[in-house]
Amino acid sequence: MGIKEMALEAKQASIKLAVASAELKNKALEEIIKGLENHKNQIIKANQEDLERSKNENLAMPLLKRLKFDEGKIEDVIQGIKSLIALDDPVNVTQAITELDDGLELYRVSCPIGVIGIIFESRPDALVQISTLCLKSGNAVLLKGGSEAKNTNRILYEIIKEACRKANMPEGWIQLLESRDDVNEMLKMDKYINLIIPRGSNEFVRYIMDHSNIPVLGHADGICHCYVDADADINMAVDIVEDSKTQYVAVCNAAETLLVHQAVAEEFLPKLKEKLEKKQVELYGCEKTRKIIDILPASEDDWKTEYLDYKLSIKLVSDIGEAIDHINQYGSGHTDAIITNNKENADLFMNLVDSGNVFLNCSTRFSDGFRYGFGAEVGISTNKIHARGPVGLDGLVIYKYKLFGNGHIVADYANKVKKFKHKKIK
Amino acid sequence: MGIKEMALEAKQASIKLAVASAELKNKALEEIIKGLENHKNQIIKANQEDLERSKNENLAMPLLKRLKFDEGKIEDVIQGIKSLIALDDPVNVTQAITELDDGLELYRVSCPIGVIGIIFESRPDALVQISTLCLKSGNAVLLKGGSEAKNTNRILYEIIKEACRKANMPEGWIQLLESRDDVNEMLKMDKYINLIIPRGSNEFVRYIMDHSNIPVLGHADGICHCYVDADADINMAVDIVEDSKTQYVAVCNAAETLLVHQAVAEEFLPKLKEKLEKKQVELYGCEKTRKIIDILPASEDDWKTEYLDYKLSIKLVSDIGEAIDHINQYGSGHTDAIITNNKENADLFMNLVDSGNVFLNCSTRFSDGFRYGFGAEVGISTNKIHARGPVGLDGLVIYKYKLFGNGHIVADYANKVKKFKHKKIK
Repeated sequence: MGIKEMALEAKQASIKLAVASAELKNKALEEIIKGLENHKNQIIKANQEDLERSKNENLAMPLLKRLKFDEGKIEDVIQGIKSLIALDDPVNVTQAITELDDGLELYRVSCPIGVIGIIFESRPDALVQISTLCLKSGNAVLLKGGSEAKNTNRILYEIIKEACRKANMPEGWIQLLESRDDVNEMLKMDKYINLIIPRGSNEFVRYIMDHSNIPVLGHADGICHCYVDADADINMAVDIVEDSKTQYVAVCNAAETLLVHQAVAEEFLPKLKEKLEKKQVELYGCEKTRKIIDILPASEDDWKTEYLDYKLSIKLVSDIGEAIDHINQYGSGHTDAIITNNKENADLFMNLVDSGNVFLNCSTRFSDGFRYGFGAEVGISTNKIHARGPVGLDGLVIYKYKLFGNGHIVADYANKVKKFKHKKIK
Repeated sequence: MGIKEMALEAKQASIKLAVASAELKNKALEEIIKGLENHKNQIIKANQEDLERSKNENLAMPLLKRLKFDEGKIEDVIQGIKSLIALDDPVNVTQAITELDDGLELYRVSCPIGVIGIIFESRPDALVQISTLCLKSGNAVLLKGGSEAKNTNRILYEIIKEACRKANMPEGWIQLLESRDDVNEMLKMDKYINLIIPRGSNEFVRYIMDHSNIPVLGHADGICHCYVDADADINMAVDIVEDSKTQYVAVCNAAETLLVHQAVAEEFLPKLKEKLEKKQVELYGCEKTRKIIDILPASEDDWKTEYLDYKLSIKLVSDIGEAIDHINQYGSGHTDAIITNNKENADLFMNLVDSGNVFLNCSTRFSDGFRYGFGAEVGISTNKIHARGPVGLDGLVIYKYKLFGNGHIVADYANKVKKFKHKKIK
């Protein structure tokens, strides 16, 4: 089947899926859990084939680690599906009601977006998370995973498709793409596909945006900041910066730049340096920082760099305004944290920093769909429309307006025979 | 000032505007009303210059009519601003709260999008409506109106800018572009501008999408349908179709195609023909329709055409399923109405028709921001992400996540020292 046929099939299924009841969708999710449990050995076998082939092709060790899909990971995705079942149905929620006039009522009701195309990296667990989020939100989905994981992806796709068939979900709602050419074809399907979610590098997301007329929900770099305010608890600040930087360095919500108020720099910086050097973090500082601790010099480029590594740039600021300006200029609008006991400064920071996630006295690493309680996420958006931050079920729905009348015509209002009431009911 | 400087100024102003209080914004709106009232004569004089120049340049009569901005229209926009003042502030609304763990609370709070670029047609009232909607929603705005209205736009812009200065709004939040080259420059400013809203023809919207990396909120054709069901009240159906087609033909929410259930066609069609012929509506029908009433033949192309004129295509269908399929295939996802007394069919239609606005027993012409009670609208979106249907204040905000902690780090959860509670509070 060609991509056009797959997209058309998904489009047709999406109309039926949009009206599937919460019970039906949860039943399908339960069937998926059963399917995963019953085919554990086959999944692990398929994954081992992928791992061996990738080892022979000299895939880097961190990527091999991401590709691995063992019993523990299968258990994790099953837990994820269970929490998804427990979440409220995001579809058919009445968001607002207005009585426009007697007998003329306007409802705004949530509904699925339609057909979503998702391109994701080599983690096979992403396939399960993404497709179950789409299912629960009533969206049809075209999936393209990393080619390293092709055997694992294929069997997971077959299990999910078969489970949904058993639960009487509409056929064709899930489609698996397998080649890079397929992706280029998919980008042209603006007639059938309503949203593309690319996961991967900044350059990759940019490529997708440049080659499609379909709206793209993507994320730019995660240049995340911690700002240690004059009124910070110093020990708390050390712990939060350490966690933000080192708890997992290869992810977009890890901190890359630290801003320190000059009033606490002398006390804070030596303590931080001692802690981070134990974890082999390389530090790059502005001139003022380097007068307090002996570290490498930071250049203008450091403020713009997403290291994704055991590296941290440090800048001293003379007040909170300078910290906010720095973040709004150099940050990527992802996640930024302030450490302070001053409520006024906290409010200032959280209102004026123009990022999707602004944190007080906690680690930037909390910026994540699972940690936010969304069950899972399709990605973290740095867009400023539609959905921002970790995107779970809420980001996969839109709404439609339903207007219920009883013979109402506009001429009566244009000719001033009748007048709108516009009474807000909900 | 170049476009880059204008966009940068708007970006800087947007950060301050985002935290402007509802009181301050409403005060600015009141100053704008005063400014419009105090400069009525100058506005009308500037508009007369535009009208005369445009007449000499042989601008078509309907466009001259749209360009005209007289005392009545000034009064209309003032009324619009008054209703905008009465609406709740869309910014800083807490949409959701989750307790992630003891002392770790996640808030989702609405905030402005940032900087919006709007390109609109020759109606000067659009400038006032759009800029006041942006002001109330806390967004900075770059405006480009039709060049026919340049004198009127210039004075309206100066009045709004001066009024906001008096009310102590941040300088630079509103910028006026005056040439077509400015628009092309604006489309490149993805660093500063967060959303482009183009109003105009389908081709124009497509051009903007093809020439910018900034997200675009645009609308495609309005190919709107009325479907007269087997259980329709025939007289009501005649009135609704007449209103949907003829109340104002040159707009996107006017009906273009009528679908009629075969069971009522013999009774309904002659009555409708009689009524519409009085208004000089040309009718095009499918073969079955033409066996009942003597009208011109419709071709496949008619189902895809937005006439924006006194023309209507008619098709007989054998059941509601055929009507829904026709709309989902040929419609543009704008506005579609069913006329029926059958509740089951009404539900089927309103759930399965994949349009932004689905109506029961009322005219498609109600699909409009003012009629929906939004005060005004920046446009009607046929997008399926972010905002759908008439876009008022709600479509001009997004949200940010604020996480309040007390030294919380992710390592404690990764190492299973602590466990998330994910307790939904709101």
